[in-house]
Amino acid sequence: MAWAWQYARMINTPYVLFLGDAPDPLSAKLAQGIKDWRPEASIGQIRLKDCHADMGLPDMTPRAAADAGAQTLVIGVANRGGVISKTWMDTLVEALEAGLDIASGLHNLLRNEERLVQAARANGRELHDVRLPTGTYPIADGKPRSGLRCLAVGSDCSVGKMYTMLALEKEMRKRQLKASFRATGQTGILITGKGVPLDAVVADFMAGAVEQLTPNNDPDHWDLIEGQGSLFHISYSGVSLALIHGGAPDALVVCHEPTRKHMRGLPEYPLPQLEDVRDSALSMARVVNPHCQVIGISVNTAGMSEEESGAYLVEVEQRMQLPCIDPFRYGAGRLVDALQDCQARRV
Amino acid sequence: MAWAWQYARMINTPYVLFLGDAPDPLSAKLAQGIKDWRPEASIGQIRLKDCHADMGLPDMTPRAAADAGAQTLVIGVANRGGVISKTWMDTLVEALEAGLDIASGLHNLLRNEERLVQAARANGRELHDVRLPTGTYPIADGKPRSGLRCLAVGSDCSVGKMYTMLALEKEMRKRQLKASFRATGQTGILITGKGVPLDAVVADFMAGAVEQLTPNNDPDHWDLIEGQGSLFHISYSGVSLALIHGGAPDALVVCHEPTRKHMRGLPEYPLPQLEDVRDSALSMARVVNPHCQVIGISVNTAGMSEEESGAYLVEVEQRMQLPCIDPFRYGAGRLVDALQDCQARRV
Repeated sequence: MAWAWQYARMINTPYVLFLGDAPDPLSAKLAQGIKDWRPEASIGQIRLKDCHADMGLPDMTPRAAADAGAQTLVIGVANRGGVISKTWMDTLVEALEAGLDIASGLHNLLRNEERLVQAARANGRELHDVRLPTGTYPIADGKPRSGLRCLAVGSDCSVGKMYTMLALEKEMRKRQLKASFRATGQTGILITGKGVPLDAVVADFMAGAVEQLTPNNDPDHWDLIEGQGSLFHISYSGVSLALIHGGAPDALVVCHEPTRKHMRGLPEYPLPQLEDVRDSALSMARVVNPHCQVIGISVNTAGMSEEESGAYLVEVEQRMQLPCIDPFRYGAGRLVDALQDCQARRV
Repeated sequence: MAWAWQYARMINTPYVLFLGDAPDPLSAKLAQGIKDWRPEASIGQIRLKDCHADMGLPDMTPRAAADAGAQTLVIGVANRGGVISKTWMDTLVEALEAGLDIASGLHNLLRNEERLVQAARANGRELHDVRLPTGTYPIADGKPRSGLRCLAVGSDCSVGKMYTMLALEKEMRKRQLKASFRATGQTGILITGKGVPLDAVVADFMAGAVEQLTPNNDPDHWDLIEGQGSLFHISYSGVSLALIHGGAPDALVVCHEPTRKHMRGLPEYPLPQLEDVRDSALSMARVVNPHCQVIGISVNTAGMSEEESGAYLVEVEQRMQLPCIDPFRYGAGRLVDALQDCQARRV
C-alpha cells in the first residue's frame, strides 16, 4: 500500500479545518472526524458566513492559521454532490497566498479549478485531491483470505460507521489485539493516511478494491472495515453491497442513529427497521462467507440525553438480543468482547 | 440523450465482428448480441487461432471484410477484466490499414494502445471506446417518475437479461404498446445506439445514471431495463443493486440459465435458488417502489433439448406460480401478458 502512505507524507500537518458555509453539523463530518481522531493535527477552523458547524477549535483567518503554524487547509465540509462551492473560492485563494497547501476529498477536484491552480502555482503551494483512487484495482475473485474481518453496516449514511470501527481499533490496540482500521472514505484516508476512496472507484472494481484493501493476514488479525452508505439508501446502496461482498466479513456491526427522521438527503424515505438491516446484510454476507454473524449494534446517541440514550440502548439490546452500545460515548469494550467471542467460536 | 445517439451516427455500419481467441462461446456474447438483434449490420466474422466462438457468419480477413463493404471492426469478445489482448494486436492494426474503424466496449481502451493510435492516425481511421461514459450523472434522488419500468434481475451474470428485455420490446412493439429497451452495457449500446455503460460509471453515480436513463414518460410507457450481474455475484453485485434502486422497477423478471454449474468466473460459488433471487430482489426493490412485483421467470434454455427445456419450464412455473418461458426460443408473449396484467392492477 505504498501509494496510500504517500498521502500521509505528502500532506503536511498541522491542519486548519475549513468548514465553509456548512448547512448543518453533519455536512462537516470530515472536519469532525479529523478533529476527533487526530486532534494533535488540528489547530484551528475557518468558517464563513452562515456556517452551521463548529469544531470547538479557535476560529482563524487563513493568514492567522499560517502564522499559527498550520501547513494545510483541509476542506472539512461536503455539500451534496461534492462540489467545490463558488462562495469558498476567495478564502481558498487567500489560504494559498498565505502559504497553506489545500487538501480535499470532494468529488469535484481542486486541480480542475482554474483560480486555485493559478494561485497554487503562483505561491508554490500543493493541491491534494485525496478522493482520486491512486492505484488500479482488480475484479473481485471471491477467494477466501486468511485473517478475520469485521464490517460496519448502517441503517443510513453518516450514522457512525467510521467512528465505530475507529473506536474498535483503539480498544483492541489497548488490549494488544491485532487490528487494522481499513478506511474506505476520504475522512478515514485523511485520518489514517491510507485506504480506498470507494465511492470514487469505477463500478466494476468496487468489490475488488475492497478485497485488495483487506488482504491475507494473521489468523487472529481483525480488519475493521469502514462501511459506506446503507443497503437501504437508494443513492449509495451499490457501494454498501460491494463492501459486503468484497469484505467477506466474519462479523457485522449494525450502526444506527435513532433521531434521524428520514434517510439522509431523501425526505421521502423512512429509515429501515434494525431487524431488516440485520437480516439483509447478513443474508448478503453469507453468500461470500457462510460463517458471518451480526455481533452487535452501535448507536450514535449524540442527539440524545444521557437518560434517553441509556433507555434506548437497553430497549434495543433486549429486542435484538445483541450487545448494543454507543462506542464513542461509552467505549467499545463490549463490542470487542463480542468480536472475541465470535473469533473463539470460529477456532 | 443527444450524446448517446451520437454513437449510432458515429459508428459506421456494416460491422465485421472480431471474435479473437475467444475461450468459449459465452465470452463472445457481445458479438452474438449484435448478430442476433442487428443481423442486417453484421456481414462477417474474424477469428484467430484457438477461437472457440462462431457466429455462423462468413470468416474473413480484415482486408476481405473491407472489400465486402464493412466499415467497422467491432471487438465482440471479452476476456476477464476487459483487457485488449496482445495476441489481437496484429489483426487490429491490419484492420485499420485495410480502412476499417474499430469499436470496443472493453475496460481497457483502444485509445490507450499506442500501436492502434498510431495506425489509426496513419490511416485516417476512428477508434470508438463505447465503454466510456460520455455524459455526467447525478446522485440518485429517488423521486418518483411517471411511466412504468421493468428490470431484468439474474441468478448470475450472462444468463439472458439483455435478450429478455430486447425480446419484450420486440413483442410489445408488435402489439403497438409503448416500450423502450434501456441499455446498460456495451452490447446493448452497440445494438441500440444509446444507453449507460453502467459498470464503467463511478460508484457514487451508478443509481443516478440509471434514474437519468429511465426518465419521466407516458403513464402507459414501459422502460425495459437491461440488468447487469446478480445480487448473488460477489464481483458485480453492487452494480445490480444500483440498477434496482435507480430503476425503481414496477415489475421484475427473474432471469436464469439452468445448466450453469457455478457462478460465472467464480468456481467456488454455487448458483442461488430462484426463490432467493426473487425474494432478495423484490425486498430491495420495494425500498424504492412499494408496488413492485415479480411478474415472471425468463430461462435461457439454449443448453437444453426441446424435451428437457419444456419439462424444466413447466416444473419452475408450477413451483414459482409465475409465467416461466424462454423468450428467445418461444417468444415473449406470456411475459408481455404478465406486464399488462401488472399495469392493469396499478390503474
